[in-house]
Amino acid sequence: MIGVEMIRAAARRANGRVRQTPLLSSPFLDEIAGRRVFVKAECLQHTGSFKFRGAWSALSAMDEKTRARGVIAYSSGNHAQGVTLAARMHNTHAVIIMPSDAPALKIANTKALGAEVVLYERATEDRDALGADLAEARGLTLVKPFDDPFVVAGQGTVGLEIAAQARAAGIEKAAVLVPCGGGGLTSGTALALADEAPHMSVHPVEPEGFDDTNRSLASGRIERNPTLTGSICDAIITPSPGELPFPILRRLCQPGPVVSDNACLQAMALAFSHLKIVVEPGGAAALAGALFHADMLPEGDVIAIASGGNVDDAMFELALSGRDQKAAPNG
Amino acid sequence: MIGVEMIRAAARRANGRVRQTPLLSSPFLDEIAGRRVFVKAECLQHTGSFKFRGAWSALSAMDEKTRARGVIAYSSGNHAQGVTLAARMHNTHAVIIMPSDAPALKIANTKALGAEVVLYERATEDRDALGADLAEARGLTLVKPFDDPFVVAGQGTVGLEIAAQARAAGIEKAAVLVPCGGGGLTSGTALALADEAPHMSVHPVEPEGFDDTNRSLASGRIERNPTLTGSICDAIITPSPGELPFPILRRLCQPGPVVSDNACLQAMALAFSHLKIVVEPGGAAALAGALFHADMLPEGDVIAIASGGNVDDAMFELALSGRDQKAAPNG
Repeated sequence: MIGVEMIRAAARRANGRVRQTPLLSSPFLDEIAGRRVFVKAECLQHTGSFKFRGAWSALSAMDEKTRARGVIAYSSGNHAQGVTLAARMHNTHAVIIMPSDAPALKIANTKALGAEVVLYERATEDRDALGADLAEARGLTLVKPFDDPFVVAGQGTVGLEIAAQARAAGIEKAAVLVPCGGGGLTSGTALALADEAPHMSVHPVEPEGFDDTNRSLASGRIERNPTLTGSICDAIITPSPGELPFPILRRLCQPGPVVSDNACLQAMALAFSHLKIVVEPGGAAALAGALFHADMLPEGDVIAIASGGNVDDAMFELALSGRDQKAAPNG
Repeated sequence: MIGVEMIRAAARRANGRVRQTPLLSSPFLDEIAGRRVFVKAECLQHTGSFKFRGAWSALSAMDEKTRARGVIAYSSGNHAQGVTLAARMHNTHAVIIMPSDAPALKIANTKALGAEVVLYERATEDRDALGADLAEARGLTLVKPFDDPFVVAGQGTVGLEIAAQARAAGIEKAAVLVPCGGGGLTSGTALALADEAPHMSVHPVEPEGFDDTNRSLASGRIERNPTLTGSICDAIITPSPGELPFPILRRLCQPGPVVSDNACLQAMALAFSHLKIVVEPGGAAALAGALFHADMLPEGDVIAIASGGNVDDAMFELALSGRDQKAAPNG
């Protein structure tokens, strides 16, 4: 069973190779939220998202022979990049399976980081069968994005850092908001904080219409999203909370805000102006919750994880263009 | 005389109140430069630039009675914000003198941070006389942007952090590039590194047409810029290197790249894509030097300071819109 000891072990294996990301703040954001807001800038992690932590954890925990044969992952997004760079830094090979209609830029970038990209036809090919065949034939190890204890333990190192940084910053009671897809980051963070900062509460944040985790927390069983398209928060859209994370979320999390796409765009623009960080829509969901839904949170400070920053120019310009120009270029 | 001991003392006074900013990197940037590139992300400092360090250093070094009477600064930019927030965090008062034609947004933001803004007419009023009268009448202490040993010592804490972070990252021989206006950051960084990492070289980077410091280093005496308008790199445009920094620069610095506005815009776009940080044009000058002028630097790694991120939406959109879309949203 995964616990804080596995997270501490992941942190030891990560030492010096995973970035300790800063905890940022701005008086301008505090004023909007009506309380102190801190942002754990995980968009500054290697490959631009927290996913590198889980990938590093999984690869660094493998025995050398297994790792040398290479790894495989299904992803066209942040997990693909995290696995690819972690493999490269371990001098091994990553195979990434992507749909053939994935954006050309994402395919090119994943290749540029060093992956072997294998494309499949969504309409006619079975992704899982293709991956299983490849893994079998070449001895590759599958790295799942959240249903893997070593991956969850790696994501949990974010929680260890938050606990230490909060102590140093004099933060005591705080609500920790986490952008939530399959629940790997949320469950890992909750496990770490339950041990290191039990006075903090943890809240998954999800986009409107894709609030499978918050609905699952309410009903007590895994609920699914009716559709997976139609949100700009692609990084945190999953069919349902993962089987490994869900019991942890149920045990340790409280309900979280459900945020609109527009709130995420506003949060991106405010993070640009006041924190000088680049956040993608899904990665900005927790900050949107902190800024615009603080009323539903327990009293005290808010810590929002900005989980990723892999956003293209057009989406970022949309975030900036949509706002009132009173929003300021100040730190 | 200012030396590394003053910088170490400034670091002790800054402990916990000045952010330790991360040293970032991306394999994509390494490939462009043809060598390893590290970016000291000082845009993530409080108020969005390194100026907060110098201001904190100056205010924290004052005796309590002097500080309680308040401080005064001339600036419409990053120094104003740094002094204002440092004063606020010391529970004292900041008076900022700005030209009446400064952008309304900058005036509003400096007020929002807590300053008393006093406007003067460029054409008819003498800024220095106005400031001296105010300081005299109210017992305010002037905080200069670079010709002040405590300010230079505060900026030098960037150098101490670079030395420690470079050791941790296994960086040995490196050229350190610094966006250079009056020379406070460059001289402070050079002093710290001369002691802590003497195998590193320090190079001031300036915009084309405003290369007063590099010309001064070449001639051996303080040279002036013929004009102060016409660059987008407003944060690092000064008439000439400061009197206090210049002898330090002469003793400790090597020539640095002179970069075009367009190169700074490209560096901003690349920092957005690959580091997920927001950098203003002048703050991106050193990264532009690292990426596009590495051929003039000694062999080894390059460390570029991204000195500030206070850029408005329109300028940032210009940086993104100007580039080839092959530039990627990857970490």
